[in-house]
Amino acid sequence: MTVQALEAARRLAPRFAARAAEHDRDGSFPADDFQDLREAGLFGLMVPRALGGLGASFAEYAAVATELARGNGATALVFNMHASVTGALGAVTEELAEALGVPDEALAARDRLLTAAAEGAWYAVAMSERGAGARLSQLTTAYEATDSGWHLKGSKTFCSGAGHADGYLVAARSAADQSVVSQFLVPAGDGLTVEPTWDSLGMRATSSHDLHLDVTVPTDRLLGGVEGLALVVAQLMPHWLVASYAAVYVGVARAAVDAAAEHLNARNLGGLPAVRARLGRADAATAAAQLVVAEAARRVDEAPGDEETNRWVWRAKLLAGTTAAEVAASVLEAAGTAATRRGHPLERLYRDARCGSLHPATSDVCADWLGIAALGGDPDRDGSAPRW
Amino acid sequence: MTVQALEAARRLAPRFAARAAEHDRDGSFPADDFQDLREAGLFGLMVPRALGGLGASFAEYAAVATELARGNGATALVFNMHASVTGALGAVTEELAEALGVPDEALAARDRLLTAAAEGAWYAVAMSERGAGARLSQLTTAYEATDSGWHLKGSKTFCSGAGHADGYLVAARSAADQSVVSQFLVPAGDGLTVEPTWDSLGMRATSSHDLHLDVTVPTDRLLGGVEGLALVVAQLMPHWLVASYAAVYVGVARAAVDAAAEHLNARNLGGLPAVRARLGRADAATAAAQLVVAEAARRVDEAPGDEETNRWVWRAKLLAGTTAAEVAASVLEAAGTAATRRGHPLERLYRDARCGSLHPATSDVCADWLGIAALGGDPDRDGSAPRW
Amino acid sequence: MTVQALEAARRLAPRFAARAAEHDRDGSFPADDFQDLREAGLFGLMVPRALGGLGASFAEYAAVATELARGNGATALVFNMHASVTGALGAVTEELAEALGVPDEALAARDRLLTAAAEGAWYAVAMSERGAGARLSQLTTAYEATDSGWHLKGSKTFCSGAGHADGYLVAARSAADQSVVSQFLVPAGDGLTVEPTWDSLGMRATSSHDLHLDVTVPTDRLLGGVEGLALVVAQLMPHWLVASYAAVYVGVARAAVDAAAEHLNARNLGGLPAVRARLGRADAATAAAQLVVAEAARRVDEAPGDEETNRWVWRAKLLAGTTAAEVAASVLEAAGTAATRRGHPLERLYRDARCGSLHPATSDVCADWLGIAALGGDPDRDGSAPRW
Amino acid sequence: MTVQALEAARRLAPRFAARAAEHDRDGSFPADDFQDLREAGLFGLMVPRALGGLGASFAEYAAVATELARGNGATALVFNMHASVTGALGAVTEELAEALGVPDEALAARDRLLTAAAEGAWYAVAMSERGAGARLSQLTTAYEATDSGWHLKGSKTFCSGAGHADGYLVAARSAADQSVVSQFLVPAGDGLTVEPTWDSLGMRATSSHDLHLDVTVPTDRLLGGVEGLALVVAQLMPHWLVASYAAVYVGVARAAVDAAAEHLNARNLGGLPAVRARLGRADAATAAAQLVVAEAARRVDEAPGDEETNRWVWRAKLLAGTTAAEVAASVLEAAGTAATRRGHPLERLYRDARCGSLHPATSDVCADWLGIAALGGDPDRDGSAPRW
Repeated sequence: MTVQALEAARRLAPRFAARAAEHDRDGSFPADDFQDLREAGLFGLMVPRALGGLGASFAEYAAVATELARGNGATALVFNMHASVTGALGAVTEELAEALGVPDEALAARDRLLTAAAEGAWYAVAMSERGAGARLSQLTTAYEATDSGWHLKGSKTFCSGAGHADGYLVAARSAADQSVVSQFLVPAGDGLTVEPTWDSLGMRATSSHDLHLDVTVPTDRLLGGVEGLALVVAQLMPHWLVASYAAVYVGVARAAVDAAAEHLNARNLGGLPAVRARLGRADAATAAAQLVVAEAARRVDEAPGDEETNRWVWRAKLLAGTTAAEVAASVLEAAGTAATRRGHPLERLYRDARCGSLHPATSDVCADWLGIAALGGDPDRDGSAPRW
Repeated sequence: MTVQALEAARRLAPRFAARAAEHDRDGSFPADDFQDLREAGLFGLMVPRALGGLGASFAEYAAVATELARGNGATALVFNMHASVTGALGAVTEELAEALGVPDEALAARDRLLTAAAEGAWYAVAMSERGAGARLSQLTTAYEATDSGWHLKGSKTFCSGAGHADGYLVAARSAADQSVVSQFLVPAGDGLTVEPTWDSLGMRATSSHDLHLDVTVPTDRLLGGVEGLALVVAQLMPHWLVASYAAVYVGVARAAVDAAAEHLNARNLGGLPAVRARLGRADAATAAAQLVVAEAARRVDEAPGDEETNRWVWRAKLLAGTTAAEVAASVLEAAGTAATRRGHPLERLYRDARCGSLHPATSDVCADWLGIAALGGDPDRDGSAPRW
Repeated sequence: MTVQALEAARRLAPRFAARAAEHDRDGSFPADDFQDLREAGLFGLMVPRALGGLGASFAEYAAVATELARGNGATALVFNMHASVTGALGAVTEELAEALGVPDEALAARDRLLTAAAEGAWYAVAMSERGAGARLSQLTTAYEATDSGWHLKGSKTFCSGAGHADGYLVAARSAADQSVVSQFLVPAGDGLTVEPTWDSLGMRATSSHDLHLDVTVPTDRLLGGVEGLALVVAQLMPHWLVASYAAVYVGVARAAVDAAAEHLNARNLGGLPAVRARLGRADAATAAAQLVVAEAARRVDEAPGDEETNRWVWRAKLLAGTTAAEVAASVLEAAGTAATRRGHPLERLYRDARCGSLHPATSDVCADWLGIAALGGDPDRDGSAPRW
Repeated sequence: MTVQALEAARRLAPRFAARAAEHDRDGSFPADDFQDLREAGLFGLMVPRALGGLGASFAEYAAVATELARGNGATALVFNMHASVTGALGAVTEELAEALGVPDEALAARDRLLTAAAEGAWYAVAMSERGAGARLSQLTTAYEATDSGWHLKGSKTFCSGAGHADGYLVAARSAADQSVVSQFLVPAGDGLTVEPTWDSLGMRATSSHDLHLDVTVPTDRLLGGVEGLALVVAQLMPHWLVASYAAVYVGVARAAVDAAAEHLNARNLGGLPAVRARLGRADAATAAAQLVVAEAARRVDEAPGDEETNRWVWRAKLLAGTTAAEVAASVLEAAGTAATRRGHPLERLYRDARCGSLHPATSDVCADWLGIAALGGDPDRDGSAPRW
């Protein structure tokens, strides 16, 4: 990528921040933010340069996500889903494709999706279902082959950006063979219905509503071109679900420190020792979390899936989540009652920040995994299951 | 008082809890809760038995306030204002009245106000003003004598229960002599206008709106019957502003533990060790804070204003505020994402709980005062000023 | 008891404090402190009045223990063992004795032991063994009947006050029937050998050394007079192992706050805001823990073994242990490097205070049990086992 | 430097660890550790390559210090003093020397000192005095010119490694002109007397005793060759006093996690959820602190004294100190009573770790400075003074 993407993110963040209160209040989708992202070319962030994208590394992506989140954490979380989809698609190498038996047409289809992203399309993820969470083994959304392509029917939940994306990554089970789960990139349009169920403590603007599908998609929308491949996101690349959340919550924590400083300076309260102590410790904790996220992201690029890489990913998730919540709570206390008024950035950030530890893998689960690893054990075998 | 008041509070709490989500969402006043309080006779809680009230001690009041807050913290906070007014009025002994030069007519007027409370009237407090906070020395609301009584003109802020109370304790400055501040009990009715400004992170149902006054009240509504007396609340009895808040936030903390247990049991998540650890520590912290509040309240009854009593009051305020915020944050994390949905009790309690440390005297100020006292110093002389 | 015992404890504490550094340095037993306790009549604290003692309640004992611990926590911990033995013996009512089949001679023998305590004898506890901990089911110390009484042979560990007590409560297993465990009160003298193994981070003066037994005791030294009764301490009265430790660590925490205040005042550092904040929060936390211990003790008197009583006992143990450690660490930081010099009270208190959470039941175990109870479960059935 | 220095440190750490308990117990100086450091060539770590040293950067030094501290924090702290002296001497560029008016002979003398270090000499720092701390303005140690060089007379305190170093950096005041303070590198030998005053909670093996001087040194031992230059350490390079301590305490924290894991595995306690949670959080906090130290060190190399560099240095000092203390306390609790026995690594590490926050600038002071900086202020002007 490059410096431009980071600079673009920094340029956009204040614009996002200016709109954040309104979207938080209404729970409305930050469509203007996404228009800004499109115009800045950031939908191509994870798209290989050969396909017109910026070809960013995971580390570069993490830095961009943090900057975006300083403007609006909710916008950054939805963008994270798009980055996950395009990043995972882009990470399928020719060797991997060959090993998995991906036909050439499917790679061509994949390239079309990525090229479209580079040109301004963005994708959401429709994976979770009520009762099943994100566990593929318990999905009930079904698909079957028809003359004109694939017909999908079912309901998804927690679909961030539902109703606004240009396409949705959907996992479904074969009606013909229950043991087969495949993934599709379903284009926006008829056959998709958004049910507005998202009404949350924080990160309200993600519009993570329910999505009902009763739709037929062209043949080439089967990802990988072969049924039964569940190529993307959670399976191959757990760091997308963990470290990228972490990058967002570091941005939220930094936004809280900055908003508190601005609030306190405006009221000439910066001289109070208790205020300074809170801001100083919040600043240090945030800086530390940011370094851990950057280190985790760097290792994801260098040695994805490696045991030591995973430890850093869990550290990043744990520290970003707990730091954001603690920092926001402490600096809100420093700022005082005036900052608890709805519409004040700190009021929103206090709520947004609490959500980081709860995204899977939760802080408690990460702590458990890290403890097992510190003891020389194997978290995959002995650890708490995440509540996905 | 008595056991009945406590039992009544326990009986009402679940009814308050059932209505809390709606009032929180709309920021609407819990009028039904107040009708329940009226019918239970709790408006007479602090009214001397001789005047038809329950004659509760401060310790008894604190216990009642905690129970009410387990249902709805916002209701309990508004009730706290009424209890403060009636408690302070009821605490004016004949000796004190004589020392202050309170004429007999004023005591009779005082008795009429208390009798009315015992019969079902309730009073709000309209003390703070924008810019001045609650500092009497900077008030701009003015009054002057007229043929038909006293005319008051000005604007108040943070008036909990504005538009719903039967009367308002109002502090105002004499137009004739700027150095004279008096207090009035202004009846509801014409001349009072509520401007709906309250829209807060938590405790949304207190309806702590602005109140504009341009009203003439009968002569006997001057409290104490002599201009220049600022008999009630903050001056004589700082514990009303401190320990009673504390009782409310202990109730909020306990409500959070209970709501988390119910949520986790319903989902069969009580077996997770991390969940149990969070609930266990939250339970212990809440129990400790409750004892400290009870001890502070007991000492307020026995030796109000005493140096050691004040230390207990600050400890109560500090611990109730920090405990509520920490407990609510931790048990929400134990409960998980499902509990962050708006309308879930934990979602509301997380926001309500954050407000306790911010009420004056803030947690940081209380810590400072306690530190000075532990060092043998005099907090009145050396301590941080509260940001009132 | 009474006020005298509490006053005596307060009078003795400064004397203990003056000797504490020396005993801590050498790990020597505070024999002078015990002479003071003897002279003050405090060995009879838990002995019924009818037998010449002070007949203290558990709540009164807890208050005394806290005061003693303000002088020297190690002295208070050893005294705690004596209080446990005499308290448990004294708590055996006639009804209980009858139900257990305790013969009259045994009650007479019990009374002699208690009378001796009232007259100045004190008892230690020799229960734990290496490998077995305090679990009676795994004891290897054996006893058998001989012509002259009972012969005991085996080795005990963690015997606080070993070599200094007038008698030792010893649990042993019958050589004739491995399933039978009995308890003896073994007098000091030949046949007991102390092996100096105690060399600990904190509470160094408890002299909790190993004790080797190869000794014959008179017939009446079998407690209860019938083999197989394990009347005392852990089985019937778990609060002795939990709440009494808690009382001691509250005293340690308070001693740390006091020592820090004295140190800081002597250096004119009391004006630093960070120092005041640390002392203020430490004071509040200590006061809260003290109330919780008092409440637990009060309930132990009123309803021992009750479900709700047990919750208070665990809260007391959890909060006293964590509070002492956190308070000592924080006020040492407030006091600065000069207070880390060996011989400075805060240096010792920092080490002593860390031990509270580690005594059984540990803080983590108490938190687990409290969490289960908060969820409506049964800690006996579902809880973590204490590492005894 | 290079990888070799880091590898050497890693190779030596277990040897240091094996000796640490003994030196801690006796408060004896780890002379064998220093012999190891000499043989590994690490006394030349900060000496420019042109003078035979390893020419390490500050970042490289920080990494080495952390590894050494994983073996023995006290050894690493004493080594830190030598690294500070040689690093500061080595950092005097020709431009700076010219600007300060340093004559060529002085540069040659400086080179001789550095060359000696590369060949195996090491230097201690004798700066602080009782009452004056490290504040140059209040020094009472005096010097005057004599025929054979400079005569110094006075007493220093907190001189780590006193009696073992080959030379001492000494600050003294001119007897002829009280306003002139100069620095000397005093060789070990006659005229120096060690008074064994160091007897501390932690870091006992640093032998930071008092040092009495009544000694004449050759002319070329005046650093800089001109009176009144106080070239080294505190003045020009505050990061030596801050960030290098931080590197050591990160090593201490990591050693505590490792020792706890080893202890718990040996006892098969790694399966306990509470244990895993403690180790996991400790691991993450330690990893974060280590990154912050590395980032601070990197910036010290790139832009020493820069405003943003200083913020990172304070973050490093704050986080390393607080993390070490919290981590050691928590993992000791996880390990249980058996780990509190003297001689157990965790027992020592718990004490050592507490000292980090107390070294200047203390954690509370760093938090204050960071808070001011976060508010856009100038810590030099508005901040708390460190208690040096």
